[in-house]
Amino acid sequence: MPLMDQDLLAALDIGGTKIAGALVDDDGGLLLRVQRPTPSREPGDGVMRAVAEVLDELRDADEWRRVAALGIGSAGPVDGRRGTVSPVNIPGWRDYPLVARVRERIGELPVNLVGDGVAMTAAEHWQGAARGRDNALCMVVSTGVGGGLVLGGRLHPGPTGNAGHIGHISVDLDGEPCPCGARGCVEGIASGPNIARRALADGWRPGPDGDTSAAAVAAAARAGDPVAAASFERAARALAAGIAATATLVEIEIAVVGGGVAQAGEVLFAPLRRILGEYATLSFVRELEVVPAGTGTDAGLVGAAAACREALGRP
Amino acid sequence: MPLMDQDLLAALDIGGTKIAGALVDDDGGLLLRVQRPTPSREPGDGVMRAVAEVLDELRDADEWRRVAALGIGSAGPVDGRRGTVSPVNIPGWRDYPLVARVRERIGELPVNLVGDGVAMTAAEHWQGAARGRDNALCMVVSTGVGGGLVLGGRLHPGPTGNAGHIGHISVDLDGEPCPCGARGCVEGIASGPNIARRALADGWRPGPDGDTSAAAVAAAARAGDPVAAASFERAARALAAGIAATATLVEIEIAVVGGGVAQAGEVLFAPLRRILGEYATLSFVRELEVVPAGTGTDAGLVGAAAACREALGRP
Repeated sequence: MPLMDQDLLAALDIGGTKIAGALVDDDGGLLLRVQRPTPSREPGDGVMRAVAEVLDELRDADEWRRVAALGIGSAGPVDGRRGTVSPVNIPGWRDYPLVARVRERIGELPVNLVGDGVAMTAAEHWQGAARGRDNALCMVVSTGVGGGLVLGGRLHPGPTGNAGHIGHISVDLDGEPCPCGARGCVEGIASGPNIARRALADGWRPGPDGDTSAAAVAAAARAGDPVAAASFERAARALAAGIAATATLVEIEIAVVGGGVAQAGEVLFAPLRRILGEYATLSFVRELEVVPAGTGTDAGLVGAAAACREALGRP
Repeated sequence: MPLMDQDLLAALDIGGTKIAGALVDDDGGLLLRVQRPTPSREPGDGVMRAVAEVLDELRDADEWRRVAALGIGSAGPVDGRRGTVSPVNIPGWRDYPLVARVRERIGELPVNLVGDGVAMTAAEHWQGAARGRDNALCMVVSTGVGGGLVLGGRLHPGPTGNAGHIGHISVDLDGEPCPCGARGCVEGIASGPNIARRALADGWRPGPDGDTSAAAVAAAARAGDPVAAASFERAARALAAGIAATATLVEIEIAVVGGGVAQAGEVLFAPLRRILGEYATLSFVRELEVVPAGTGTDAGLVGAAAACREALGRP
């Protein structure tokens, strides 16, 4: 089969909730999309069975023979060099040889493994808010906080595919212990569950529906609740310090923020932009922009394909 | 003149205390070295006169005709794109067109401008403790705290030549105000003057010579003074949080620490290595090494030449 016919990439997006797969064309369009819930409490091989079902469904498609390579974006940490994954939310997988297991089903096709924050960044750089930007930080603020970097016009996955892990940098060296073992991590202040937890601890009460999600806190903030607004402001401060640190360390021109918490819109972005000015003070970081993500719910799949394209040296 | 005869680089190292210049060979040897004190309180053109004297002395040497390019490392921030500098310690230079003024004296020779932290990193990567390392953070901990990055085997100066500015990332988002305008910066906790200031505030008293430098605090710590040791431990904590943040963001395998405060040796490095483990917790940063710098007092000159070599694409 001539190489020019291999115009598609296969993509896997592996998270704590779902395992999705797709065939992705050169424009980032999805030809086929399949999904399974992640059996995240099962032993490792049980989780792998769900991945195998997704892969088998992709392989059954006629278009599979047009596939040039497989890109995987997984909840992290990952080890792209060794092909293993240890997702925090999938306890059955610790140094799990995901790439080797995948190869048992797909043969000699090239495989590229990166963390999900790196994948999301590849999607934003290819098709989203970081398009055409040479130096960018892209973040997902949701149940956790993840991210990735574009440096010098290229995705920067780092040697193991984990670079851009902004959720676990400490912005409060004496702060609260984080499940990762450190203290005062960005995620421990700015994630959705932590926004809700802080609002509740400070006296915010949910409505009659009992919804205590960050989205409910955002709705209360929008309606004028000062405790709800203060919890978002605190999250914004942690994000601002983390984004400013990143810009000061590697020089980025834009920070793209996606994920469920970013759906709060100006409840998050207004204090974030204001407070960023308090931390991004040096001349070369003062012009830093902060914008919402441009890609949608399939960013993980599109990004796994995009990171794989870039690793293969495709234009 | 054939290009192959242009086997030297000229180098300038511009700091708040001295302006040094040299001709540097392909092995990093200095053929000629000249120096002037920095008239740091004079207006911009007065400072420039000292730079011009250094350049003129280099140009008077027979070897000047073998010079292929000029590398400049300057106290920052700098703007390598625009060729301007705004060193914090040289108030007369704000957006000062250093490269244009230098060109008036040296003609069309290529000029490469980076911050002094980037220059020191280039020296460490070429000839020091980061030699052969593909992903490294190099730092100077002294009156201030600066740094630079090697990523993917190459110096990462960033678009403006300021990347790696670890002294001004916040590791304590509610911390003390920093002269840069932010709060809780690494430099505000870990620089030599801040180590001494904290020790004095906590009750440490200097010996009969009245020496209140960080070196004197280090000597006291070595002799068993717990207040002096605690001040170094606090500095180590800030450095650990900053180094861990850098590793988590860009994946580095080694952190190289030089500068006057690093001369404290194990008084600094022992708590730094221990506390680093409290912040560098994710799997891909746990193996991070911390070592003293390998280059000496001429690192600024060697590094300005090294960064220029790399910008010119020399092997």
